[in-house]
Amino acid sequence: MSIVFHHTPERAKIWSEKFAKARPDIPFHIWPETGPKEDVRYLAAWKTPDDLATLFPNLEVLFSLGAGIDQLNLANVPPGVKIIRMVESSLVEGMIEYVLWAVLSFHRDMFRYARQQREHVWDGSHNRPAKLYRVGLMGMGELGSPVLEKLVSFGYECRGWSRSRREVPGVKSFAGAGELDAFLAETDILVCLVPLTDATRGILNRSLFEKLPKGACLINCGRGGHLVQDDLIPALDSGQLSQAVLDVATPEPLPPEHPFWNHPRIFLTPHIASAAQSDTAAEAVLANLRRYEAGEPMTGVIDTGRGY
Amino acid sequence: MSIVFHHTPERAKIWSEKFAKARPDIPFHIWPETGPKEDVRYLAAWKTPDDLATLFPNLEVLFSLGAGIDQLNLANVPPGVKIIRMVESSLVEGMIEYVLWAVLSFHRDMFRYARQQREHVWDGSHNRPAKLYRVGLMGMGELGSPVLEKLVSFGYECRGWSRSRREVPGVKSFAGAGELDAFLAETDILVCLVPLTDATRGILNRSLFEKLPKGACLINCGRGGHLVQDDLIPALDSGQLSQAVLDVATPEPLPPEHPFWNHPRIFLTPHIASAAQSDTAAEAVLANLRRYEAGEPMTGVIDTGRGY
Repeated sequence: MSIVFHHTPERAKIWSEKFAKARPDIPFHIWPETGPKEDVRYLAAWKTPDDLATLFPNLEVLFSLGAGIDQLNLANVPPGVKIIRMVESSLVEGMIEYVLWAVLSFHRDMFRYARQQREHVWDGSHNRPAKLYRVGLMGMGELGSPVLEKLVSFGYECRGWSRSRREVPGVKSFAGAGELDAFLAETDILVCLVPLTDATRGILNRSLFEKLPKGACLINCGRGGHLVQDDLIPALDSGQLSQAVLDVATPEPLPPEHPFWNHPRIFLTPHIASAAQSDTAAEAVLANLRRYEAGEPMTGVIDTGRGY
Repeated sequence: MSIVFHHTPERAKIWSEKFAKARPDIPFHIWPETGPKEDVRYLAAWKTPDDLATLFPNLEVLFSLGAGIDQLNLANVPPGVKIIRMVESSLVEGMIEYVLWAVLSFHRDMFRYARQQREHVWDGSHNRPAKLYRVGLMGMGELGSPVLEKLVSFGYECRGWSRSRREVPGVKSFAGAGELDAFLAETDILVCLVPLTDATRGILNRSLFEKLPKGACLINCGRGGHLVQDDLIPALDSGQLSQAVLDVATPEPLPPEHPFWNHPRIFLTPHIASAAQSDTAAEAVLANLRRYEAGEPMTGVIDTGRGY
């Protein structure tokens, strides 16, 4: 019974040390080295090797190294293999930091001051209290809910939208397609944190932008595939949106000639909002392994029908 | 018995409405209109008129409209007149927002990503956890202490320095000139929030920068006078400091030809970190007035010997 790790060598080093210490009984192999293929019960991977079924005939659990599983080719995963997404504290902390930074940047006019600095203009406006800003977050899951809690602690007027109803103290909650328009109508700052599925691909599009109050701000820290990129610049140029903060794009890296780079109302970051730290990620997988061996439910089990 | 208000007309309008409602018994005059000068017991002002002693011979309390009193000419205030600085919630909230934004910007490499965007470079680094950043805040007073509490809630390793020892849960505290060097030696991100007095004027200088770990970040949201401006660019160019975020400057507005505008490692904002909101500021003064009339201690009384 063994585990194969499939990601970068730097991460592999930290994981192999953690496993050697905590579970010397489980042989730890770093891809492309696998040991006897029929012994492999567990695979920890960002993307999976092809032909998973024939490669590891006795595979039981696939641990995704990302918060989502959209980077995996699910068609490639044999039925019966459990798929687990990464749930660990530094992923959550990173996302809280990123979203709070982006919301504060918009609320406190920091993008405007950056432009003014380039023009040597000293012109400040009075700070408006956080309670005057309605922040609407799509995706009240393992990442979205703690982000909403932190936004509430700053005094923002918070709304959350998710497929099925979720409750976070101090947050007005909306659920399902039927309540999306009402949610959008009272959102000044829209944060996208839904999983990328067939139902959410392209959800950030012209029709959605038009349902937001004029001058709203878009923060996309989901996946590039959530955004219809051709719809963004017209929405910014018309003033329907006044700012976009994008941590994700299609493709990544974004090609140097892409018009997003030069747009004065787009702030781009290179998919850095949140990443699992190798040490805490390895600990999260070790804890899930112990649950699995004890016959207890693991955290982050994917419902393959639903897609997240 | 009357009050005179001395600041902008927009603020005066909000204050006069608040006072008319809460204290119709106290005549409210908007400078330069004052009513009978011998009736004036209270003055609410950002800067005071000259010849205060002869102008209002029966003045009892001067309410500063700023968090500090460095904008007042204290020599102009007759002895016996109590001086009160502004203590109100939106001043505190604004400062929390600004400092958290600046600390997150440095921690999460946002200044670097802004530069990369101009060069069309997609190059992200893994997020390092907040606990690896030591944030040192100078000035653990009415503004500094709640800012430290919020920094602690994000997981930063926090230190505070003040003239006399203060305690904030989760913060390692340093006090007095004797402990300043030890405080600086373990500060990666320095936040200046001390009052501007003769003892703190020019405290942010070359000698102080050299006591910080190499590559530290400076956030000045105190006053322009805290910084020896000629010392900043050499410290940034040598790499002793890797970034400065300045909300204040000397003079304000900073002249268009000043070298700070173009420096790639300086982010400038036009003194917007925090300002009292007229409605909550008026309420804070009304509450202090009730305390004064009842013979109770007011909040924010200035010790003119100490200077804050």
